[in-house]
This record gives sequence, C-alpha cells and structure tokens, in this order.
Amino acid sequence: MRPYEKDPAAIYAQSFATVRAEARLDRFDPAMQVVAVRLIHACGMVEIADRLAWSQDAAARGRAALAGGAPVLCDCEMVASGIIRRSLPAGNPVVCTLNDAAVPDRASALGTTRSAAAVDLWHDRLDGAVVAIGNAPTALFHLLERLDSGWPAPAVILGFPVGFVGAAESKAELVHEPRGAGFIALRGRRGGSAMAAAAVNALAAPLPGEGDD
Amino acid sequence: MRPYEKDPAAIYAQSFATVRAEARLDRFDPAMQVVAVRLIHACGMVEIADRLAWSQDAAARGRAALAGGAPVLCDCEMVASGIIRRSLPAGNPVVCTLNDAAVPDRASALGTTRSAAAVDLWHDRLDGAVVAIGNAPTALFHLLERLDSGWPAPAVILGFPVGFVGAAESKAELVHEPRGAGFIALRGRRGGSAMAAAAVNALAAPLPGEGDD
Repeated sequence: MRPYEKDPAAIYAQSFATVRAEARLDRFDPAMQVVAVRLIHACGMVEIADRLAWSQDAAARGRAALAGGAPVLCDCEMVASGIIRRSLPAGNPVVCTLNDAAVPDRASALGTTRSAAAVDLWHDRLDGAVVAIGNAPTALFHLLERLDSGWPAPAVILGFPVGFVGAAESKAELVHEPRGAGFIALRGRRGGSAMAAAAVNALAAPLPGEGDD
Repeated sequence: MRPYEKDPAAIYAQSFATVRAEARLDRFDPAMQVVAVRLIHACGMVEIADRLAWSQDAAARGRAALAGGAPVLCDCEMVASGIIRRSLPAGNPVVCTLNDAAVPDRASALGTTRSAAAVDLWHDRLDGAVVAIGNAPTALFHLLERLDSGWPAPAVILGFPVGFVGAAESKAELVHEPRGAGFIALRGRRGGSAMAAAAVNALAAPLPGEGDD
C-alpha cells in the first residue's frame, strides 16, 4: 500500500488548502468564508459554494448567539453528534427533541412528521437560538409556520435539509422570507446532518490550524 | 406559504419513486438496488449511483452478518447515530471506539489520527463484523493495513470516508484489494456519515413502504 498522510494537522491544512484553491470563495466575507470552507470540507464538494444562500448578518448573529450561551436546536441526533462540543464558546446546550416521548402523539394529532412535531418542543428555547436542520424538510417548513404564527425568532437558521421531497422547497421558502431570523442554507436537494453540524462548528470556532480569522 | 407534503409514508414513497425515476439502477441486483436507493435518498444526489463500487457478494454478506448478530463497527459517532436501531435484525451492537480513553495515547504512539487508532480497539470484534466508515480516510487505510498484517476480516466494509485528503485514495485501495472482506464504497471525494449509516440501514431492512424485496 502506498504511504498516506497520517498527521491530523497536515490533513487539515492540506484539506483547507485544496478547498481554497478549488472553490470560488471570493463572494464571501471572512466570517462566511469560514462557514463555506467547513461546509465544503464536510461534504467533499467544492461546487456547493455556488449554491449557498445567506443573510448578510447570519454569521455574525450566529457567533454572537453562541457566545451569549444560546442553545443549538437540532432536528436529528446525527446533527447533534456532529457538533464539536469543546468548541462551543459557552457550554451551549445542544438540544434534539426528536426522540422526546411526547413527539409521536403530537405528530399524529398535527397530521405531520415526527421531525415537524419535535419543533414544537423548541418553543421556550427558540428566542435567539441557533437552529440546525440537517435532515427533515418538514421540520424547516413547520418552524417557518410557527414563526408566521408569532413564535419568537431564532438568531440564525442553518438550513440543510436533504432529499427529494420538500428539501429544495423548504430552503427556498426560508431564503425568500426568513421571518426575522438570519439564515445560511444550501439551495436544492443537497444538504445533510454533516453540513448542518459543520455550519454550527464554523460559527463556534475558527478553522483548525487557521487561528482567529 | 404553499402546501407541502406532511405524511411520512407519502414522503418516503415520493422520494423513492423520484430516485427510481432519475437514477441509473439497472446495473444493480435487487439487494444492491436497495442499498443504492437508500444511499441516494440520504444525500439527494442520484448521480452517485454511477460512482458506487461493490463486491458481488457484499449485500448478501452484510445481511447474513447482521442476521447472525454481527456488531456494526463505526468510525465516528455520527454514523452510529444514523443507524436505525429498531431495524437491526438481532439487536446487533453498534460500536464506536473513537472516544475511548485509550485512543489519544495510542494515536500519539502510532503517529496517526485518533480515527485510525480507534480501529485497533475493534480487533476482538472484527471477525465477520459490518464495518461502516463515514468520516476518516485514515480509519479505512489503517483497517486495511491491519488486515494485511493478519487481522480477521470483517464480513463487509462500507467505505464512505469523505473529503480532500485520502478519501478517494483509501476507497480506491479498498476496491482494488478488499483483503477478504466484501465491500460497498463510493469512489471519489464524496461520502459521509449519512451514507455510511444508510448503507447499514439498507442491509438491515427493506425500504420503508416497499416490503421485502
């Protein structure tokens, strides 16, 4: 077998160098560049840089929210698992309500998915929170509906639901009308838990080996 | 806001119908079709069907291993989080050793990553196991080196490390010389925890709503 790179610092450095060499990053400000680089690093696709949408203040709002101790509300356990806890600046709680015992009955009552019903359990923590959606379009749609009905807005919505039914549409709705929240989202069908977690990690800390940006 | 699909069964059905309509699935036998459909569903990209590589017996070996109670060995917690436990046919243990207390020292001693060092803790469970790698190329490289040195072969290696340094190379090495294991892998830089978990879920159970295939 041929030799391969084993040094974690060298792997990070070479990865980020490749991303910076291949991806079109010039339209991002420094804070959003960190997010874009981390997202690309998480999925191995430099071309997603061209499909990112964000509100101008999203990265700053997300960083300030985390620094202030805001909770991170996740739509599934995979997103929660991908968040690097030691990087969170204020021991921020990472919350996933999908497996809460109240969710199945609420989903039945509402005639929707468990992922959407789980969003209702975020109510008391939603004001100024960081929301990370990496799986379910229905969770993002449902959150937007709740914001329409007057629920408090999160600081930022990291919109990365994935798939063939509702993913592109829910993110388009978020980008079209963010309802008072900042947002970072990947347009189209692509997305996923690794990207949603990477977005949180990018807001929480600079890139490994790159120091403060 | 426009109406959107909220019924979980309808979402699954519409998703899988879209995948079957758009992806080139004719080169897969029925068992591998289930794997391919689940992988595509997990990432939102029908074109990955064209980059999958697998050994002829991989799906059968993986299914038999799970039915026989084999453990699922994961390179990171995100993969473990994505495995649908209730679908596993024999209450199979899902094992991730990355955060074992022995791992940092072992990584330093070996001069490699924690992900690679964590593979060494699989030794006693490796024979006939289902291995799911969704993050670290070094974990896959290291496993292949251990197999070269005579460690027992897993039933199947689900090879989905992602990224810019070693991901494509480690999967190429697996496909070139699987060292007695069955394999399913996505060539190139793409991959990730969601795909690795989806591959396990596909071996564990038929597609939701599609019954036994």
